[in-house]
Amino acid sequence: MKSRLIHEIQGERTFVLILDINDEVMASLVQFAKTNKLGAARFTAIGAFRNATLGFFDWESKKYLKISVNQQVEVLSLIGDVALTDGEPAVHAHVVIGHSDGSTRGGHLLEAHVRPTLEVVLIQSPAHLHRQFDRESGLALIKDIMTRETLAAGTARMGNRGPSYV
Amino acid sequence: MKSRLIHEIQGERTFVLILDINDEVMASLVQFAKTNKLGAARFTAIGAFRNATLGFFDWESKKYLKISVNQQVEVLSLIGDVALTDGEPAVHAHVVIGHSDGSTRGGHLLEAHVRPTLEVVLIQSPAHLHRQFDRESGLALIKDIMTRETLAAGTARMGNRGPSYV
Amino acid sequence: MKSRLIHEIQGERTFVLILDINDEVMASLVQFAKTNKLGAARFTAIGAFRNATLGFFDWESKKYLKISVNQQVEVLSLIGDVALTDGEPAVHAHVVIGHSDGSTRGGHLLEAHVRPTLEVVLIQSPAHLHRQFDRESGLALIKDIMTRETLAAGTARMGNRGPSYV
Repeated sequence: MKSRLIHEIQGERTFVLILDINDEVMASLVQFAKTNKLGAARFTAIGAFRNATLGFFDWESKKYLKISVNQQVEVLSLIGDVALTDGEPAVHAHVVIGHSDGSTRGGHLLEAHVRPTLEVVLIQSPAHLHRQFDRESGLALIKDIMTRETLAAGTARMGNRGPSYV
Repeated sequence: MKSRLIHEIQGERTFVLILDINDEVMASLVQFAKTNKLGAARFTAIGAFRNATLGFFDWESKKYLKISVNQQVEVLSLIGDVALTDGEPAVHAHVVIGHSDGSTRGGHLLEAHVRPTLEVVLIQSPAHLHRQFDRESGLALIKDIMTRETLAAGTARMGNRGPSYV
Repeated sequence: MKSRLIHEIQGERTFVLILDINDEVMASLVQFAKTNKLGAARFTAIGAFRNATLGFFDWESKKYLKISVNQQVEVLSLIGDVALTDGEPAVHAHVVIGHSDGSTRGGHLLEAHVRPTLEVVLIQSPAHLHRQFDRESGLALIKDIMTRETLAAGTARMGNRGPSYV
């Protein structure tokens, strides 16, 4: 994977990430997030995979069912975000893939190998999104958001939360 | 629904909206748009719904056909924008959902209830997009764009339109 | 196609493009990219087509298989980017479309005609992304990224590449 910073303004940074043939997507994105200490980011991507494992969250069992994709597919849409779980950046991404006849499948992205390329645009925001364990779903959901300004101002005064807008 | 402003620069504001279990998506987004007086915005989201009603615009009848989704689904892609219709913010969103076997459906989002979460990144631009009734389609389409600078400079001199780029 | 610049900050420019009935999408986007000398951009869009030709890149033959869509469809997701190929802006876009029963198809966008509208948000970055011929795939892939600052600083000293972040 290659990456470049293509714009930066007041702590918001826009990166282009180019994943190469055989790169594993989730591992590459997590490594990038950790190396660059991302506390909050969003991304979109298009490209192609040579295989993938997708997930569907089954509300009854509270587990991800796995969907195997063992063929070359177009990546029609990859949308995701980065937030902190237990202080470490975690990547959450959903994907729609396309087959040779134009039919599509999709799910929560668990794993995928690129072929020949994946073009990602990732925007880092100067904030920290935090995932916390949610008892009802059994998942780590984004529950609270602290901005760097809030952290600098002190959590005692601000009540541990940034400004709310609705 | 919770929301936080995570970046602001010269009138462009980036929000994270986290919708909670049972929140209705369109009502939540419209309420946010009205409360924050959005004149122009774009958003992307991923998450999951417990049900949804999608629409397909039938060109012959000029009506939306309804597609009912009465089960837990992944939200693989939710892309939309905010523009003004008769001076009030209107939300336009299209969605792709994923079933347990990885198959997908999609359409114009009419209504959906979240379970357990929907993670939205919304960027407000310092401009006003206006929808106007289009006789041929019978829909309110974005027909003209006035920026705040244009409004400040006076519509008489600028001819009621911002600068054009092609 | 109409377009407006709705935000500009330090060389990053956000445009709204509204394509009208019968506009061809790829030609319109390429014309916009050339007129505005885009060296790097990303975009998302929703709307509807009256027809489309999608592509699937067949890894064995190294050719795009064509998928014809000869009916009115919703554009559920259109995600793409702009980079330079041989010094000229090239548009790369993947699309997911929706049929009247909610079923979906998708692929690499080769051609499509709008009906009644396509709402595009395009963000131009102050950088140049370059596509280069890739022998293994036979495609022009983004291989290197030069920022304008890098170009101004001189390629000799910087080794022809911008700063790398992983």
